[in-house]
Amino acid sequence: MSASNQNFASDNVVGASPEILAAMAAANGGAQASYGADEYSRRVENKLRDVFETDLDVLLVATGSAANALSLAAMTPPWGGVLCHEESHINNDECGAPEFYSGGRLLVLGGAGAKLDPAALKTHSLAKIGDVHCTQPTCVSISQVTELGTVYSLAELRAIGAVCRERKFRLHMDGARFANALAALDCTPAEMTWKSGVDVLSFGATKNGALAAEAIVVFDRSLTEELAYRRKRGGHLLSKMRLIAAQMDAYLADDLWLRNARHANAMARRLADGLRGVPGIVVHDGCDANILFCTLPQSINDGLHAQGFHFYGDRWGPGVVRLVTSFATQAAAVDAFIAAARRLSSS
Amino acid sequence: MSASNQNFASDNVVGASPEILAAMAAANGGAQASYGADEYSRRVENKLRDVFETDLDVLLVATGSAANALSLAAMTPPWGGVLCHEESHINNDECGAPEFYSGGRLLVLGGAGAKLDPAALKTHSLAKIGDVHCTQPTCVSISQVTELGTVYSLAELRAIGAVCRERKFRLHMDGARFANALAALDCTPAEMTWKSGVDVLSFGATKNGALAAEAIVVFDRSLTEELAYRRKRGGHLLSKMRLIAAQMDAYLADDLWLRNARHANAMARRLADGLRGVPGIVVHDGCDANILFCTLPQSINDGLHAQGFHFYGDRWGPGVVRLVTSFATQAAAVDAFIAAARRLSSS
Amino acid sequence: MSASNQNFASDNVVGASPEILAAMAAANGGAQASYGADEYSRRVENKLRDVFETDLDVLLVATGSAANALSLAAMTPPWGGVLCHEESHINNDECGAPEFYSGGRLLVLGGAGAKLDPAALKTHSLAKIGDVHCTQPTCVSISQVTELGTVYSLAELRAIGAVCRERKFRLHMDGARFANALAALDCTPAEMTWKSGVDVLSFGATKNGALAAEAIVVFDRSLTEELAYRRKRGGHLLSKMRLIAAQMDAYLADDLWLRNARHANAMARRLADGLRGVPGIVVHDGCDANILFCTLPQSINDGLHAQGFHFYGDRWGPGVVRLVTSFATQAAAVDAFIAAARRLSSS
Amino acid sequence: MSASNQNFASDNVVGASPEILAAMAAANGGAQASYGADEYSRRVENKLRDVFETDLDVLLVATGSAANALSLAAMTPPWGGVLCHEESHINNDECGAPEFYSGGRLLVLGGAGAKLDPAALKTHSLAKIGDVHCTQPTCVSISQVTELGTVYSLAELRAIGAVCRERKFRLHMDGARFANALAALDCTPAEMTWKSGVDVLSFGATKNGALAAEAIVVFDRSLTEELAYRRKRGGHLLSKMRLIAAQMDAYLADDLWLRNARHANAMARRLADGLRGVPGIVVHDGCDANILFCTLPQSINDGLHAQGFHFYGDRWGPGVVRLVTSFATQAAAVDAFIAAARRLSSS
Repeated sequence: MSASNQNFASDNVVGASPEILAAMAAANGGAQASYGADEYSRRVENKLRDVFETDLDVLLVATGSAANALSLAAMTPPWGGVLCHEESHINNDECGAPEFYSGGRLLVLGGAGAKLDPAALKTHSLAKIGDVHCTQPTCVSISQVTELGTVYSLAELRAIGAVCRERKFRLHMDGARFANALAALDCTPAEMTWKSGVDVLSFGATKNGALAAEAIVVFDRSLTEELAYRRKRGGHLLSKMRLIAAQMDAYLADDLWLRNARHANAMARRLADGLRGVPGIVVHDGCDANILFCTLPQSINDGLHAQGFHFYGDRWGPGVVRLVTSFATQAAAVDAFIAAARRLSSS
Repeated sequence: MSASNQNFASDNVVGASPEILAAMAAANGGAQASYGADEYSRRVENKLRDVFETDLDVLLVATGSAANALSLAAMTPPWGGVLCHEESHINNDECGAPEFYSGGRLLVLGGAGAKLDPAALKTHSLAKIGDVHCTQPTCVSISQVTELGTVYSLAELRAIGAVCRERKFRLHMDGARFANALAALDCTPAEMTWKSGVDVLSFGATKNGALAAEAIVVFDRSLTEELAYRRKRGGHLLSKMRLIAAQMDAYLADDLWLRNARHANAMARRLADGLRGVPGIVVHDGCDANILFCTLPQSINDGLHAQGFHFYGDRWGPGVVRLVTSFATQAAAVDAFIAAARRLSSS
Repeated sequence: MSASNQNFASDNVVGASPEILAAMAAANGGAQASYGADEYSRRVENKLRDVFETDLDVLLVATGSAANALSLAAMTPPWGGVLCHEESHINNDECGAPEFYSGGRLLVLGGAGAKLDPAALKTHSLAKIGDVHCTQPTCVSISQVTELGTVYSLAELRAIGAVCRERKFRLHMDGARFANALAALDCTPAEMTWKSGVDVLSFGATKNGALAAEAIVVFDRSLTEELAYRRKRGGHLLSKMRLIAAQMDAYLADDLWLRNARHANAMARRLADGLRGVPGIVVHDGCDANILFCTLPQSINDGLHAQGFHFYGDRWGPGVVRLVTSFATQAAAVDAFIAAARRLSSS
Repeated sequence: MSASNQNFASDNVVGASPEILAAMAAANGGAQASYGADEYSRRVENKLRDVFETDLDVLLVATGSAANALSLAAMTPPWGGVLCHEESHINNDECGAPEFYSGGRLLVLGGAGAKLDPAALKTHSLAKIGDVHCTQPTCVSISQVTELGTVYSLAELRAIGAVCRERKFRLHMDGARFANALAALDCTPAEMTWKSGVDVLSFGATKNGALAAEAIVVFDRSLTEELAYRRKRGGHLLSKMRLIAAQMDAYLADDLWLRNARHANAMARRLADGLRGVPGIVVHDGCDANILFCTLPQSINDGLHAQGFHFYGDRWGPGVVRLVTSFATQAAAVDAFIAAARRLSSS
C-alpha cells in the first residue's frame, strides 16, 4: 500500500478522524445495554433529529451496502423494481445485496453525470404497471454524491421527488458521501432529503472520518419496525453497538462531519485547479464534491504510479482516472501530486 | 444500565480489553488497502493458521449472527436442513438469519445440557433421505460453549464428527465463546475443531474482549470462494476492514484471548462455589465455562435486582436465572454478589 | 402399480371424475384469452362466490403446495413465523416450499389428532413479540381435513379464529381435502371458513376428482394483488388457464365436489366398520373423513400387500397403516379388502 | 375473445391438439403412482432420450416460466448472473421468476434480431471476474425461437456454445417454441442442443399443441438431483403427473410435435407472403418460424381489429404489430386476414 499522503484511490483507505478515535476509546469503559439500547445510540438519534429538523428513526449498521440493501428491502416488494442509475453503487459494487435483501430487481437507467433524469422516471415501465408478468417499479434510488462525483442540485432533487410522489414510488438516497454533497450545495440536510421527498437515507460516515459507521435514517417511519427485524435477520445488529454509535456521536459533534467534508471537497477543487494547468491533462467537468475525473496521457499515468501515487483507472474509459480526496488528504499531498504531474508532462 | 461491576447479564455489555482498544488506535494511521486486503487481515490469517496448526481461510465479520448465517449458507443448499439444538442461538436469537442466508431450514433436536446427541443425529430423518418432498439434513451446527453453559468434551465432539462423516453432513461450530470452551477443555484448538471433524468455525472475539470481531474460520477450503461472495452480498465486507482485523490481531497476540477466557471461567467458578454455600440457592450442574445457571428464591432474586445487580431470568424456567461472567468481571464484584445473596438469604 | 380397485395408498393415485374429464374436452375448442382471463376462470370465481356466500378472489394453480406456499407468503413477512402442527403437510411434505415463498419460518406445535390447540396458540412465543432477535409469529395454518384424518369441529375452528383475531395472526386453511371435511361437518362452506376467521383457503380439487386444480380462495381481499404477482413470479400462472379452470368449473357444478367427497367418506366409514370386526386389527379413532388409520398385525399387513393391495405404513408408528379412500373407491373394493383381512386374520 | 380463426395474438390462446386431448382421456383410468413415478412419465423420458440421441433426465412442469426459472436456478449461484437478451422472455415476461428461483441476477445484452452475439459474450464483465463486489456471470440463456421470431442457425449456436465452454458459462436454451425452431433449421434435436453446448433445455409443448406441458431436459445430468428438489420446493411437482406426462407422450408420438410446428411455420410464411403484396404494409425480415412482425398503417391496424382480428402491437415500436400462428391456424384464416388487409389498404 502506498503512503497515505500519496493515496487518491478512495476515501476508504484511511483510518478515522482523531476525534472519532478518541470517542471510541471514551465509550469503552463501563457496562452498556447491548443491541443498540446503549446511551450513545440514543444520543445519535437525538442529534440526527436535530440535524434533520424532524422526527425520524435511526438504525446503525457497519457498512454502506448493508444500509442500502436494508433500506431498499423495506421499500420494495419481491416483485418490485428499484429504478437506479447504471453507474450506481447498488448496481455495480454490491454483488447483488439489494436483490438479496429485497427479492426485487434493479431497473437500470442512464443519465448524464450519473444522475437520474426525472423525465425518464416519469415514463419508465408505464405500460407495465399492473401487469403481473412484469416487475413493478416501486422505488427510486439516487446517490448523492453520485459515483461520478456530481451532486444533484436541490431543484433536481425536488423534480425527482415530485415524480416519485406522482407515480407512488418510494425514494431512497444513497448518502455514502452525504456530507460532501451537503457541503457542496450549502443547503440544509432537511432540504436535501425529506423536504425533497426522500423517504429513507443511507447516511454514511465511514468515508468521511469514521471507521465503520452508517445510519439508516428513516423519514417514513412506517418502515422502521420492518427495518429493525430486517437488520437483525441480516446479521447487522451489533451486540456492542456502542462501537458504531460512539463513532457516529463524535462524527455529528461540533460539525466534525461538515468540517471533514468541506476539507475533502476543497482538496478536490485544489487538485482540479492545479491539474487544469498541466498540459496534456483534461480535467472533466462535474467535480462537485470530493471525486475528480481526469484524462491523463499514458506517460503521466505511468509516471505518477511509478512515483508511488495510487489511484484507479480503466473502468471509466481510455485514459480516464479517478482521484478521490478525503478528510485526511493534506494540501501538501495535493500539491505534490500536481507538481509530479507537471514534471511528467514537460519531460 | 447498572454499573459494569454489578452486571452479570451477558458478556456483551462491556467494552473491549485495553490491549484491543490500543491496537485499534495503533492501526488507525496511514493508508491501508480496503475490503480486507490490509496488512492486519493478513496477520490475522497467519496467526489463525498457527493457532489451528493447519491451512485455513479466514473471513472477518462484525457479528456472530453474520458468521453463523454465512457459514451455514455455504454448507446448506436451499432444500437442506441444519440439525441444531432447540436451545441454540441460531434457533432462538437470530430472527431467521440462517434461513435467510441459506434458504434452508433448521431441524431442531433436544438433548441434555443443550448438547446434540450423536445417536439422535445418526438416525434423524433417515427415512427421508432422497425423498424430494422432505427437507434434506445436510449440516450439523453445534455451539461450543453451549447456550446452557456446558462444553462438549473432545470425546463428544469426535462422536458427532464421526456421525457427520458417516452421514455426509457438514459440521459447523458456533464458537461465540470458543476461547471459554478451549480454556475449559485444556486441549488444542485443532483438537476441538478440524481434528474432530469441524468444517467451518464461527470464531468469536466480541464476547471475550473485542468490540465487534468475529472470524469465519474455514477448514474445508472448498467453501471459501462462495463465502467471499456471500459475505459481500450480505453487506458484511467492511471497507475499512482494519477496524475488525486490528481487534482480532490483538486478541490473538500474547494469548490475550486465552487469558481473558480463563479469567471469565474462573470468575464463573468462583461465583458457583460461593453461591453453593448460600441457603435456598440451587446452583445447577454444567457450569463448564463462563455461564452459570441457578435457581433463586424470589426474595433473593428481587433483592439482588433492587441492589443494582443485573442478570436475566424467566426464559429458563421458574426461578432460574443466568449469570454470565466475562474477561472484565472482577473478583470483588463476584464476591459482592455472593455476599449480597447471602445477606438476602438470611434476612 | 396395483390395480386402482386395490389401491388405498392415497387419493392422488387415480385420474379425474368423468364429468371433469368431459369438461376439459369441452373447453378445448376455440380461442380463449390466456393467463386466467378466460371465461372458465370467470365462471369459477362466480361459483366460488356463491358457494362461500361472500365476495372473494380466486387464484387457480396446479398444485396444493403452490396454493399453500403462495397463500402463506402473502400472510407472513420474511421475519415472521407460521404456527402449524408437526403433522402438517406444510411441515413434512413440501420440501420447504412455504419457507421458500415467504422467507419466513414454520413454528411447529403438537396437539392431539393433528389439530392445533387454541390454548397453545394463545400463549405461543408471547414473550418474544416485538423482540427483534426472534421470529415473530404472524400466521396460523390449519389443515381441514388434518393429515391424521380428523376434522376440526366448527367450535374448534371458531376458537382458533378467535385466538387469531386476539393475537393479530392471519389464519390460513389448507383445504386439500376441503370437500371431505365439509361433508363430514355438514355445515356451510362459509361457516367452515371466513365466518370462523379464515383469511385465505387452499381449496383443493385434485384429490377429490380433478387432475390438477387448486384454488387460492382469498377472503381477505387486501392480499389479492400481492398474490397475483407472487403466482406469476413463482411460475404458477398457466398460459392456457382453461385447463385448470374447466376442471374447477365442472368440479363445482351440480354438487359434484360434495357428491365425490360424501362417497369417499362413506367408503372410509365402510372400511372402518368392516375392519373393526376383524380380530387382531385395531381401528384408530378419528376417521372423520376419508383417511383411516389402523394397527395391523404384521402377518395381515404382509398378506394384504402380497395380494396386491397398496397402502402406506411405517411413518406413523409400529404396525400403523394409513388407508385412504377417494371418489373413485368402489364399495366392492372396500369389501374385498375387508374380506382379505378377515381371511388373513383367521389363517 | 375473438373467434379462434381470427386470433393471431399468441400461440397460447387455443386449446390442445386432438391427439393430445385423446391421450389425456386415455390416461385417466386406473391407478398410477403419483409425483412422476407413473408409466407415462417413464415413456416420455425414454422418448426424449430417443429424440435427442443421448442419455438425459427429464423433469415435467406445467409452465414455461417454471421450466426456465428452475433450470436457471440450478445453473446460477445467488451471486451469479444470467447473460440474456433484453428482448428475452425471462427478462420481460416472468415477473422476476428467474431471480426468485436462483437468487441471481439477469445481465442483459442487446443484439440484432433478439439474438445474443458471441463476441459480446466473450468479453462481458471480463474485468469483474473474481471480484467479490460484482455479480459473476455464470450462465447464458438463449431463446430458440427468439422473442422476435428469429432462429439461431447451427453455426450461431455453436459459436455461443464455444464461448460458454471457454468462459465456463453454463448454457440454457429457452425452447418454448423449440419445435418451430427445429422445423425451421431442419437439423436434428441433438445438433440444436447438446451437440452445440446446451446444458439444460426448456422444452415447450404448451404453445405447440399441448395445454400445459413443459419438460426440463437435462443434458448435464449433474444438475438433476438439485432440480428435483427445486421443483418440489417450488410447488411444481404435480401429484397426478400423468396429466402432464400423457400430453407430452402424445406430443412426441408419431411426430405430432414436428407436424404441428411445420404447419405453424408454414402458416406464418403464407401470411408473410400474402402481406408482402399489400400496399402500405411492411413485412419485417426475420420471420424464421411462426412469429411475424409487420408495420401497418394505422387505418389497416384499426380496420383489422374492427373486423374481429386479434393481435398485439405497441410494444415493438410505432405501427409494429406481431402476428403469431399456431398448429391450429387454418390456411383459410390466414387468407382471410390477408384479404381483409388488402381491402383496407385499397379503401
